Amino acid sequence: MKQAQKDYDHLQQLSRHSRILTGIGHLLDWDQETYMPDGASGIRSIQMETLAGIIHEEKTGKKFVNALSKLIDIPKGSLKTKELSGEQVAALKEWRRDYLKEKALPKKFVEEFARLTSQSILAWRSAKKENAFQRFAPFLDKLVSMARKKADFLGFKEHPYDALLDQYEHDITTHEIAALFSSLRKNVVDLLKKISKKKQINDDFLHGSFSRDKQLEFSHRILKDMGYSLNFGRLDISAHPFSSASHPTDSRITTRFHPTSLVSCISVIMHEAGHALYEMGLPQEHYGSPLGDSISLGMHESQSRWWETRIGQSKAFWKHYLPHLKKQFPGPIEKASLESFYKAINKVEPSFIRVEADEVTYSLHVILRFEMEKALIEGTLSIRDVPEMWNAKMQELLGITPKDNTEGCLQDIHWSMGAFGYFPSYTLGNLYASHFFEKFAKDHPDWEQRVSSGDLLFINEWLHHAVHIHGRRYTSKELLKKVTGKEFSANAFINYLNSKYEDVYNLK
Amino acid sequence: MKQAQKDYDHLQQLSRHSRILTGIGHLLDWDQETYMPDGASGIRSIQMETLAGIIHEEKTGKKFVNALSKLIDIPKGSLKTKELSGEQVAALKEWRRDYLKEKALPKKFVEEFARLTSQSILAWRSAKKENAFQRFAPFLDKLVSMARKKADFLGFKEHPYDALLDQYEHDITTHEIAALFSSLRKNVVDLLKKISKKKQINDDFLHGSFSRDKQLEFSHRILKDMGYSLNFGRLDISAHPFSSASHPTDSRITTRFHPTSLVSCISVIMHEAGHALYEMGLPQEHYGSPLGDSISLGMHESQSRWWETRIGQSKAFWKHYLPHLKKQFPGPIEKASLESFYKAINKVEPSFIRVEADEVTYSLHVILRFEMEKALIEGTLSIRDVPEMWNAKMQELLGITPKDNTEGCLQDIHWSMGAFGYFPSYTLGNLYASHFFEKFAKDHPDWEQRVSSGDLLFINEWLHHAVHIHGRRYTSKELLKKVTGKEFSANAFINYLNSKYEDVYNLK
Repeated sequence: MKQAQKDYDHLQQLSRHSRILTGIGHLLDWDQETYMPDGASGIRSIQMETLAGIIHEEKTGKKFVNALSKLIDIPKGSLKTKELSGEQVAALKEWRRDYLKEKALPKKFVEEFARLTSQSILAWRSAKKENAFQRFAPFLDKLVSMARKKADFLGFKEHPYDALLDQYEHDITTHEIAALFSSLRKNVVDLLKKISKKKQINDDFLHGSFSRDKQLEFSHRILKDMGYSLNFGRLDISAHPFSSASHPTDSRITTRFHPTSLVSCISVIMHEAGHALYEMGLPQEHYGSPLGDSISLGMHESQSRWWETRIGQSKAFWKHYLPHLKKQFPGPIEKASLESFYKAINKVEPSFIRVEADEVTYSLHVILRFEMEKALIEGTLSIRDVPEMWNAKMQELLGITPKDNTEGCLQDIHWSMGAFGYFPSYTLGNLYASHFFEKFAKDHPDWEQRVSSGDLLFINEWLHHAVHIHGRRYTSKELLKKVTGKEFSANAFINYLNSKYEDVYNLK
Repeated sequence: MKQAQKDYDHLQQLSRHSRILTGIGHLLDWDQETYMPDGASGIRSIQMETLAGIIHEEKTGKKFVNALSKLIDIPKGSLKTKELSGEQVAALKEWRRDYLKEKALPKKFVEEFARLTSQSILAWRSAKKENAFQRFAPFLDKLVSMARKKADFLGFKEHPYDALLDQYEHDITTHEIAALFSSLRKNVVDLLKKISKKKQINDDFLHGSFSRDKQLEFSHRILKDMGYSLNFGRLDISAHPFSSASHPTDSRITTRFHPTSLVSCISVIMHEAGHALYEMGLPQEHYGSPLGDSISLGMHESQSRWWETRIGQSKAFWKHYLPHLKKQFPGPIEKASLESFYKAINKVEPSFIRVEADEVTYSLHVILRFEMEKALIEGTLSIRDVPEMWNAKMQELLGITPKDNTEGCLQDIHWSMGAFGYFPSYTLGNLYASHFFEKFAKDHPDWEQRVSSGDLLFINEWLHHAVHIHGRRYTSKELLKKVTGKEFSANAFINYLNSKYEDVYNLK
């Protein structure tokens, strides 16, 4: 074996060790949200902190630096060998990038940030509960200034928000996001205006009282059809649904039950299974190397939103499943036609929070957050103006105004966690999914027919070969280009929304 | 703060770090037996191995050795300071002992032993399945010779089996066990002969078909009464019941359901909760130090057997619970009197395996194993004679002969795991429990009356102050003496058995 190959194997082995510990951390997280007794929360934080400490040491320690330095010049980024394959070279670059990021934040800063966010989460909870923005404001102020400092530590070329974005989505700038979101914003706002002039869709038959066990049974049926194997995963209940993988052979999901909404649980499990199938599909031989890891939060979201919206809210899907649904849940739904059911589950209605948003208004919540975060980081928006700006943007984008700050700028946990730069991933996921979907539909012109007959496995197969098996060989944009042959843009998603909702709302 | 105190705190902090990782390992074990998808077993072994590697390095690494050496001379065992408290001194001695044991086995030997046991477990499974002792024999041969080597590495004064015993129960020798077991053996065999002459007890009403949910409900009621808090624990289902604690605030138990035996599940949960209450009762401020750890397997078993047999099979306990049991499980049991129920659950009947044994014959299984293990390690029993010797001893001790080796010397997993020296702990637990119980009954002369009225909390309170809070401050024998004022012997257990079964079988 050549020396470079030996060095590469050694590097992967070291990296695998900390990856295994990261996987153990995911399991502890999973347990915390599912089965952990409440009284164990104190020791659980200590366990997580202990693992995180070891992982950070391993990822920045001498052993790792020496192993990486043998193959790549860390400061310059230039390769020291020509004997490695293209994918190995790609892996080295990602390893270097991860290392630089891991090293960039001083330990003292990380600890200070962790302390601030844990206090901020508590402050946010109480502020939200009592609609008292002024109680959260001083924390938000500190969080923004810490995030700004973080950007300096991480480094950026154009805009400090670039560095924050880069934590979740590599290789995309604030400038690019702004351009994507600007075309999207215009189009969606126009579409929403057209829809609002139409008669509202009746979806009464989707609401009622639905047995938990039957919902679970139906969920399991869909999971199986999607190719989600219970040999390598499981479905549990938690307050907030999530997917958590410690390894491709152990990729678990959770759901919550909506006692009065029939489709909510199905949407959730298809979404989470989309994430889980991505993790299950990562190449095990590269476990521990960037080639065995998912690309980004946005790419992950492309998989979950693909299953949730592109498949789970399609007419083809319900052509097959609606009769089964009617059998499982006898009641008002039995009288619904496929057409009226399809329209009902795709009903568009502005609401106050992303997690309850339909496909059309979803992006508007993300755009609002992006615009505000950008202004906060730039320093052009002061903390005390946040509630007013929030409400103004809600009115401008969605045509509704929150009744108070609890429903408005205090609605979710992201800011209190210091997660600035996170939100755009949600919409990037939708854009990526549509970009891929055009190619998928070309490769499988009969996809609707196959889905109508209950065949879903070929979809996962396609995603597996297009996305999963590459790990982090490519950036999101590179992969989108490689798979589809087209440069990434928001067009595919915009076209999809327009054409689908012209149909749903008879806009033509 | 004095320097010695600072050094002690530093040592505890280091030790706490690896204790936290050990706790994480316990959680992974728990998950493996309860919720882990089957296909994840490969990565799970790797996760466990990775944690074990880090823990071993921390426990034998320079940092730890330096910290320990500041306070105690490791080779000689002499203290280097006079400024520490009595319990701190006891902790230092235990830390040193743990370190010497951890260091004693060469890494190569540990790996070889692990490989051999994992192969042996597979060989044993297939040999047991097909009643083919000759297939397991070569593995047993290697296991015995590796165990003999292990004893040499660990070191011993009188008998190589001392070193093996010491892995599970410190401060007790083969010679002492032989003496304890010899008096026990004679007494139990005599008792069993007397019982066998009596008319057998009818326990038909204990058998039938019992709902899993109702068994679970009843189990939860008893757990609550015992003081087992679901805030710091939980009850799940697994193939083999166990208890697993990662911390006093996270101490979980499992049970299995016996579809046709009413009392089996209750026995199991009381046994496992006994283990769990011990872990919950350990002093949290000493977590990571020997003062925050349980003494030994035998002491652990004293807690589980206490609850399972001394309480859960007492007349006082069922005076309170039998009416509830009858209400929960209407059927033949409704006609049983307290007296006939009590006799039925304490029915004595020789059987082939410890896990199904009643209180009288239980020790005979342990004695058989001890005598055979001792002979194997001494080299006075050859592998090919094992089946014959097993059967002869079964006949001699229990008056029954296994129909084949599957029911005989291949019955359980212990030998294939290389766990020679483990079995005596099971009986030591019973002896310890009875030794403590005499003092408990003196401290609470009204215990039967209180238990009859459904009060169990004072029992856990007593065990907590007698046993739990001391961690490893004392050895088992020291603690027994300290609590009861009496030297440890088998007398208390023998007296208890004789007096209880004279009553159950009207032997007088």
